[in-house]
Amino acid sequence: MSAADDFGPEPAYAARAAALLRAAANDLKRNDQAAEADLGLPPGSFADYTSGRLPITWDLISRAARAWPLNERDLLPVHGDTPHGLRMMRAEESEASSRIIERGAGPYYEYRDTAMSRQASYRPEWIRMLRVVQDDDPGNPAVNWNKGHLLYQFTYFVGPVNYYYRSAGRSYCAPMNTGDSVWGLPFAPHSFTARSGDEPAYILALTYGGELTGDAQRELSTFGRATTGSLALALGDHGALLRSIMTGRLLTVEELADRSGLTADRVAALSATPGRAEWPELVALADALGVSVRELLAKHSKTEADVRIQPARTARRWVHPGADGPAYRFTQLAGDPLHPHTTSLEVDVLASRPEAMLPATYQHQYLYVLGDEPVAVRWRHNGEQFDGRLEPGDSAYVVPGVELSLGAEDPARLLMLRIGGSVTPDVRFALGAMPDGAIDRYVAEDRLWY
Amino acid sequence: MSAADDFGPEPAYAARAAALLRAAANDLKRNDQAAEADLGLPPGSFADYTSGRLPITWDLISRAARAWPLNERDLLPVHGDTPHGLRMMRAEESEASSRIIERGAGPYYEYRDTAMSRQASYRPEWIRMLRVVQDDDPGNPAVNWNKGHLLYQFTYFVGPVNYYYRSAGRSYCAPMNTGDSVWGLPFAPHSFTARSGDEPAYILALTYGGELTGDAQRELSTFGRATTGSLALALGDHGALLRSIMTGRLLTVEELADRSGLTADRVAALSATPGRAEWPELVALADALGVSVRELLAKHSKTEADVRIQPARTARRWVHPGADGPAYRFTQLAGDPLHPHTTSLEVDVLASRPEAMLPATYQHQYLYVLGDEPVAVRWRHNGEQFDGRLEPGDSAYVVPGVELSLGAEDPARLLMLRIGGSVTPDVRFALGAMPDGAIDRYVAEDRLWY
Repeated sequence: MSAADDFGPEPAYAARAAALLRAAANDLKRNDQAAEADLGLPPGSFADYTSGRLPITWDLISRAARAWPLNERDLLPVHGDTPHGLRMMRAEESEASSRIIERGAGPYYEYRDTAMSRQASYRPEWIRMLRVVQDDDPGNPAVNWNKGHLLYQFTYFVGPVNYYYRSAGRSYCAPMNTGDSVWGLPFAPHSFTARSGDEPAYILALTYGGELTGDAQRELSTFGRATTGSLALALGDHGALLRSIMTGRLLTVEELADRSGLTADRVAALSATPGRAEWPELVALADALGVSVRELLAKHSKTEADVRIQPARTARRWVHPGADGPAYRFTQLAGDPLHPHTTSLEVDVLASRPEAMLPATYQHQYLYVLGDEPVAVRWRHNGEQFDGRLEPGDSAYVVPGVELSLGAEDPARLLMLRIGGSVTPDVRFALGAMPDGAIDRYVAEDRLWY
Repeated sequence: MSAADDFGPEPAYAARAAALLRAAANDLKRNDQAAEADLGLPPGSFADYTSGRLPITWDLISRAARAWPLNERDLLPVHGDTPHGLRMMRAEESEASSRIIERGAGPYYEYRDTAMSRQASYRPEWIRMLRVVQDDDPGNPAVNWNKGHLLYQFTYFVGPVNYYYRSAGRSYCAPMNTGDSVWGLPFAPHSFTARSGDEPAYILALTYGGELTGDAQRELSTFGRATTGSLALALGDHGALLRSIMTGRLLTVEELADRSGLTADRVAALSATPGRAEWPELVALADALGVSVRELLAKHSKTEADVRIQPARTARRWVHPGADGPAYRFTQLAGDPLHPHTTSLEVDVLASRPEAMLPATYQHQYLYVLGDEPVAVRWRHNGEQFDGRLEPGDSAYVVPGVELSLGAEDPARLLMLRIGGSVTPDVRFALGAMPDGAIDRYVAEDRLWY
């Protein structure tokens, strides 16, 4: 089977594949003749591939991966399955994806898919708890634990759900209720049960890949376990970060002291202990290293036992755009400083018509209609305006850069989860540094480099 | 042609492909039965694929990309072509890759490949200037410009080479000599000529992909030009960064003021102007936003006209490990704060034997032997020690995490370029947050999630 079978009905995907081939040859400084020689192609045919006159096939991709220092995946684009900026999954479609997972010789969960896209790492599931327990004992033998998974998990609770989590060999149970939420680290074992068989007890388990999936996982897999472990940075340890940067730049304590004006003793101390330098010292060190100050500041996490729980009753609430004519009320759900680009909110829709546009964000967005009221949704994508309606249990994925507004006749509520994708601040600053006109070629290279 | 044809001779690659299939099914919460139903596979066969008993084929990958919300590339690993941590390209191999590029109806450049790997984004070329000019006029009609290319370019000059660059419609010529270097942004048009036909005049053109290639480029290509442009962040603009984060979190000025203790006027001013907040304000804002302080500090660049030139005569020099018994003398070459993980150095080897180990770095490394003296190289990778010898004109790629030392009987010199890969600080902190034992599964998922 050739790749062309799939590319056929999706011209934009085929065009992106053609552009990637041109870009790969440019990167390797191969003009058409050199590329044809390397790949064993007939003279004149390379331009047919890069212009889209001939489809990119798996055979061609395999030849390139053998002849050139690149990987098959380097020549494969991402499918764009959200052409109008927002894609819905109806409650009925979710129900049709229902499947029962058996655990401990009996039904344990009912899973249903909700809105997903090939353009984002969300893997959001609606999950109903089928196992009913009478206590909140994490050692209850009726509780069947999983082994944890690679994806980060944001969970929103509806009804009397017990949440079980395990960290460093110790097990916990947190009895949750509607509106409570939790954010958890990858590979942390967990489980869920219902405290009642009479009321709805389900969760929205919004897993997503974050920085650990994609290219980074592929690259680290080639390095193996030991090297991957050695690359880990300790959270909140500013000294370890400075040490790593000094090692990377092969700077001695003496040289950095000389450049920065700090004493050698002070540089040595800062690179040996977790504490943060004073701000003027940070500025001097960044300047001496030739980096921005942000590079010298460690990230931190506020997880406890690998999770961060946000009870509904202590959650922050505020109105938008302001107290004078509010259109939305937001409730802050669980999150963590490790993921500064993840936004989890309960959205109460206060206006009857979708007029108050939420400004476009750099993040991907996921929406799920909680409760029994439908929501009118209006959005603008690439200069076009669209209107739609999300019914209870419907969900939607929204690409970055879309302006969005929501309205409801009666008070309606949605769950919103925004996440960063591959377009990190580093990428966004790099876009900001590009010369005029370069972005056109960046998203779709269409020419030889000379 | 099936993917298996390529995976066959590379068991580790096949195993990584099998692990990716298991991880993809886990992410989607598909057990073996559900996966077989989705992909149209015979009962019992999914475990054969994920265990490596059956090879992952392109047909299987295509089925998964149709049935599941993922892309073909999501199921493809990276080839590991550097099993012992260091891979050399001999000068003779580089010479064998020689090709002449004609420009303006005559030979313009001789290109030769140097060491590359499928595990890193380097595309380093040795390039000899064949066009000789008598002046340093950027308008000289004998100068043939290129259109610029996606990759970042670090260039090291040998001999009388003219470097031409163009930014915002204005053209420049910088006459360069041995040891001078330049770092340039993507898509900036440039050219090179020789000022003499009698002496060697060549460059090491070390292009590399940086943050703009890989997943980010694939994702942005699906968004298109307008959205990609809207995601750019202005360099050095702390206010724009704060505004972007506030928008992403749907925080109003009033709510952020209330949380941080700053006045609404001050929050409004900080989010409207490029200047940086005072340090205590930054700490308060970061805490109120639930992010680390680094997320609120913009990156900056010191490029002028899209390039940063470092003349040899003003370059910083220092010895390593210290003035008492130095083994190396380093000379700092061109770089820019936009790329804090790029290290460019001239390395003078002062010790006769490779004893002074350079500590392992998180970066990829590239080495090229300048001058006429060979260099003995010793390295440690995954607990094993290796010895080799780099002759003049030889080059090498070194994976992250390798300890390395260099020695030479007579004073020898190398060019070293270290770069970051997909394993950014965000990824490294995420590794630091993982529970014990999780890294094994992260680099090679081998089990069902439950």
